[in-house]
Amino acid sequence: MPSYAAPVKDMQFVLHDVLNITASDIPGYADLDAGFTAAVLEEAGKLASDVLAPLNAVGDREGCRLENGVVRTPSGFKDAFEKLKEGGWTALDCDPDYGGQGLPYVMGTAVGEIFVAANMALNMYQGLTHGAYSAIHAHGTEEQKATYLPKMVSCQWTGTMNLTEPHCGTDLGLMRTRAEPQADGSYRITGQKIFISAGEHDMAENIIHLVLAKAPGGGEGTKGISLFIVPKFLVNADGSLGQRNALSVGKIEEKMGIHGNATCVMNYDGATGWLLGDLHKGMRAMFTMMNEARIGVGVQGYAVAEAAYQNALAYAKDRLQGRDVTGVKNPEGPADPLIVHPDIRRNLMDQKSFVEGARAFTFWGASLIDRAHRNGDAGAEGLISLLTPVIKGFQTDKGFDVAVAAQQVYGGHGYIEEWGMSQFARDARIAMIYEGANGIQALDLVARKLAADGGKHVMAFFDLVKGFLKENEGDERLKAGFLDPLKGASKALQGAGMYFMQNGMKNPNAALSGSYDFMHLMGHVCLGLMWAKMAKAAHAALDAGAADRDFYEAKIATGRYYMARQLPACAMHLARIESGAEPVMALRAEAF
Amino acid sequence: MPSYAAPVKDMQFVLHDVLNITASDIPGYADLDAGFTAAVLEEAGKLASDVLAPLNAVGDREGCRLENGVVRTPSGFKDAFEKLKEGGWTALDCDPDYGGQGLPYVMGTAVGEIFVAANMALNMYQGLTHGAYSAIHAHGTEEQKATYLPKMVSCQWTGTMNLTEPHCGTDLGLMRTRAEPQADGSYRITGQKIFISAGEHDMAENIIHLVLAKAPGGGEGTKGISLFIVPKFLVNADGSLGQRNALSVGKIEEKMGIHGNATCVMNYDGATGWLLGDLHKGMRAMFTMMNEARIGVGVQGYAVAEAAYQNALAYAKDRLQGRDVTGVKNPEGPADPLIVHPDIRRNLMDQKSFVEGARAFTFWGASLIDRAHRNGDAGAEGLISLLTPVIKGFQTDKGFDVAVAAQQVYGGHGYIEEWGMSQFARDARIAMIYEGANGIQALDLVARKLAADGGKHVMAFFDLVKGFLKENEGDERLKAGFLDPLKGASKALQGAGMYFMQNGMKNPNAALSGSYDFMHLMGHVCLGLMWAKMAKAAHAALDAGAADRDFYEAKIATGRYYMARQLPACAMHLARIESGAEPVMALRAEAF
Repeated sequence: MPSYAAPVKDMQFVLHDVLNITASDIPGYADLDAGFTAAVLEEAGKLASDVLAPLNAVGDREGCRLENGVVRTPSGFKDAFEKLKEGGWTALDCDPDYGGQGLPYVMGTAVGEIFVAANMALNMYQGLTHGAYSAIHAHGTEEQKATYLPKMVSCQWTGTMNLTEPHCGTDLGLMRTRAEPQADGSYRITGQKIFISAGEHDMAENIIHLVLAKAPGGGEGTKGISLFIVPKFLVNADGSLGQRNALSVGKIEEKMGIHGNATCVMNYDGATGWLLGDLHKGMRAMFTMMNEARIGVGVQGYAVAEAAYQNALAYAKDRLQGRDVTGVKNPEGPADPLIVHPDIRRNLMDQKSFVEGARAFTFWGASLIDRAHRNGDAGAEGLISLLTPVIKGFQTDKGFDVAVAAQQVYGGHGYIEEWGMSQFARDARIAMIYEGANGIQALDLVARKLAADGGKHVMAFFDLVKGFLKENEGDERLKAGFLDPLKGASKALQGAGMYFMQNGMKNPNAALSGSYDFMHLMGHVCLGLMWAKMAKAAHAALDAGAADRDFYEAKIATGRYYMARQLPACAMHLARIESGAEPVMALRAEAF
Repeated sequence: MPSYAAPVKDMQFVLHDVLNITASDIPGYADLDAGFTAAVLEEAGKLASDVLAPLNAVGDREGCRLENGVVRTPSGFKDAFEKLKEGGWTALDCDPDYGGQGLPYVMGTAVGEIFVAANMALNMYQGLTHGAYSAIHAHGTEEQKATYLPKMVSCQWTGTMNLTEPHCGTDLGLMRTRAEPQADGSYRITGQKIFISAGEHDMAENIIHLVLAKAPGGGEGTKGISLFIVPKFLVNADGSLGQRNALSVGKIEEKMGIHGNATCVMNYDGATGWLLGDLHKGMRAMFTMMNEARIGVGVQGYAVAEAAYQNALAYAKDRLQGRDVTGVKNPEGPADPLIVHPDIRRNLMDQKSFVEGARAFTFWGASLIDRAHRNGDAGAEGLISLLTPVIKGFQTDKGFDVAVAAQQVYGGHGYIEEWGMSQFARDARIAMIYEGANGIQALDLVARKLAADGGKHVMAFFDLVKGFLKENEGDERLKAGFLDPLKGASKALQGAGMYFMQNGMKNPNAALSGSYDFMHLMGHVCLGLMWAKMAKAAHAALDAGAADRDFYEAKIATGRYYMARQLPACAMHLARIESGAEPVMALRAEAF
């Protein structure tokens, strides 16, 4: 069975050596000294290794069962969830006014990675609650916040998000769920929602559903959509639980993975709901939740990959098979360990260099969110809104690839469920689909985010890369291995942007046909930038006489691998983009 | 639930327009006129659509069960297998001396694609039998052939191949299974084998296991290995079944996919076996089976992709979501079909252009096997031995990617088992692993096949590409879209070969670090060559006034897509290869 150990050392490196968080002017960051963050991450790591990870295979095997309208989660999930609540982990980065601990989002992200890597399905119950918390926090009335937030911060009550219907996924304008206003100010919600993660379960006293529905007078399409708070149990004025609301779970879906999470069909049969935020502006409120969820899914992408990689690495060191062609490495044994073989190393280095790069990218993204929220910095807000589809789309695609690659190291054993590597691949697969399938992320990036505010944010991103290159141009240790490849990759990305500008106006399909490639190209530039920054930080630590030279040298070697073996994908993506719409659109639909 | 229709028209195009088989000098090809091949393929297609495909999901859901030493296959499998036998499908390309129909291998391959696409797990029972048939046919005594082959041709008896043991997969030298010679000329076989596909089941009267084991006196490593025929029931002199042999199934593995096929742990407890081929030369005999099995797995790669693609395409035409940004296409409906969106098309074109290219490549490969066997052509033999790891490794990697991409078209529904798209991805995954994991295919290609016979076969391959380019250099219709990209891709492949030659001698890791990229680079060149040939054939058909202009125009457009959007991967693979061993090997194993 797979095991998991939190990569605390690598997280500390990103937080302190690369992002240098204690020197930041973001409120709250000064308190995040290395001793404090290490203590938090190690404590989370213990819970992850000892409690959450051993339940990961249990959740996969048992799944969730629907019995007489009640959902039973897998053995041990309830106890483990209690431990998450008791430890205050669900409150980590929540508002102290509602019982939160008020730590920055970057810490919530790091701890989130640990819990997701150990048990993605279980962590989703709190992840969705956090998203619903954020939406109520941002858009709720004082009364709504007082009613719901404290219990959601503690996960005494959990939350969900209800968007999808059988006939409408991405295209929410087709929505049929209705909200009828009542005399008391509430609404009667009627309709069916599908794919509702954690829609029903036995681990919380109440479940607070956030439901998109159409209220009268809003017009066609997404304009008529509003967001409603629809609790499983109505809440009395004194905060105690009242009557059961008119909603029920229709069935649990049989899925490819994340079996430990109950994915429900939810039926709202005249359920009582309350408007959250402004009438007919539900999409805006829902996007508060969605943007956070997209970062969270981007974390899932590389967190599951990290868990898969750890196990593939252990297997490659342990399994004896064949001999090193350059000379026997394990003369006492019947064969050498797999890790001596170049193609196994290539595979492991692909995994390692992605996971570490993605971690740095995601933590940096989380720090931009902190800067946006805590400093009210519009530039940071714009930049993270540009990067969000990349964090979600690129990292979940590559994270799945890594899980599949890790499975491959095991040979035939990788295909046998008992070894647990199949689960990583099956679980990772969903992250490419939900919270906006990755094609939608690419569309969001190219059709909305590039052009937002007159292209200001993508310009800011390029300036950032250029600034880094300029600042370090004299550093011979970085030049060939890092700066030159980064410059080339960044140039390819600018070339792609230029192609869209020159061709997208007269033919939008010229841009949209290249959107997926652009998302990946930008992902590589982002990870390339991160690796260049990490190499710089590692050299600085070595220069300063850091004790653990092996760690920093490995960091530089891993970065050189990423630059040499992954960044060549940039030119390929550019070539595809510049081939334009014609090859993509040439066939009429009937001619397929 | 997914459906499947055999792509008979496309197969006919490859057989007749591209390969022009009736004009070939390969014995038996002259009989394969278009009317005959169409009749065979359509009949196979009916069986596939009506009988095999509807059982695909059943097999996945029910799996195989082991009850008191007996394996029960899923509901309906036995009846369907009977239909395959009754129709003579299992005998299609077998030797008429043993009840076969004697059709060329290329026809067996085309029919095999159809059956695999409809139900991969079910088809494995006959696929493995065919492999065992070939090994006995090539290496058996006259008596062995007379005893076993007729019943294996009809699949009254099925076959297996037993290589892997718990501690040894690729490295067969570590094998522990022993064969002790007995006075009567038989051997007592003792040991445990794992991952034995179709190792035990209820669909045949007898199961003929081919088992690798070490007989005394053969020395260490793979040199001491021999191959044995070990039937489940011993066969009496009159051909009737005798006593039960001392072998049993230990358990059935729980796998990620191909649940309909029983993957068994087999225990041989002093079982009676007979030597097949020469003593201590079992690896050679096993490779007869392995090479055929590798082509068969390469077929699985694109066949499952074809089935997944067909369903993704149907869904993309049917599902209404969003509007075409260039203008509404379905004004009467609430939204346009998915296929209007450029990124959905990009995805579908990736799928279509791979599957059709792989089909042509595989049929061509099958015709090389026919030429090698039927004409005794050593050049064809050498060329197909070079191409086999590419057909297996490249096509199963890309086939899995296509199955995953097809699943993506369904959005959230793709993740729900009920829709059947998860099964395609889960089933396709094994093809990258078994019959030599794809890393081993890459190793075989670069370390053995490139250098075999002084590099003669790879030179022959380059000559073939050059010859085609030269022959068509005046064709302006092919130049920009096909010939130029093929020339560039082929140049990249030659550059990679050159890099290996110049660096691999002093450091084998310089070649081995690039082996996986080389396999993919070569796969793209092969499919690029196929697309250029298909485009030429399509133009010829159009020039000749072919009735179905749409088909041929679509073929050219699909080819242009492959050349424009897939061949740019070649330069990326070359860049990775030329980065050499250093980035791959820099980290010491302990520093990971």
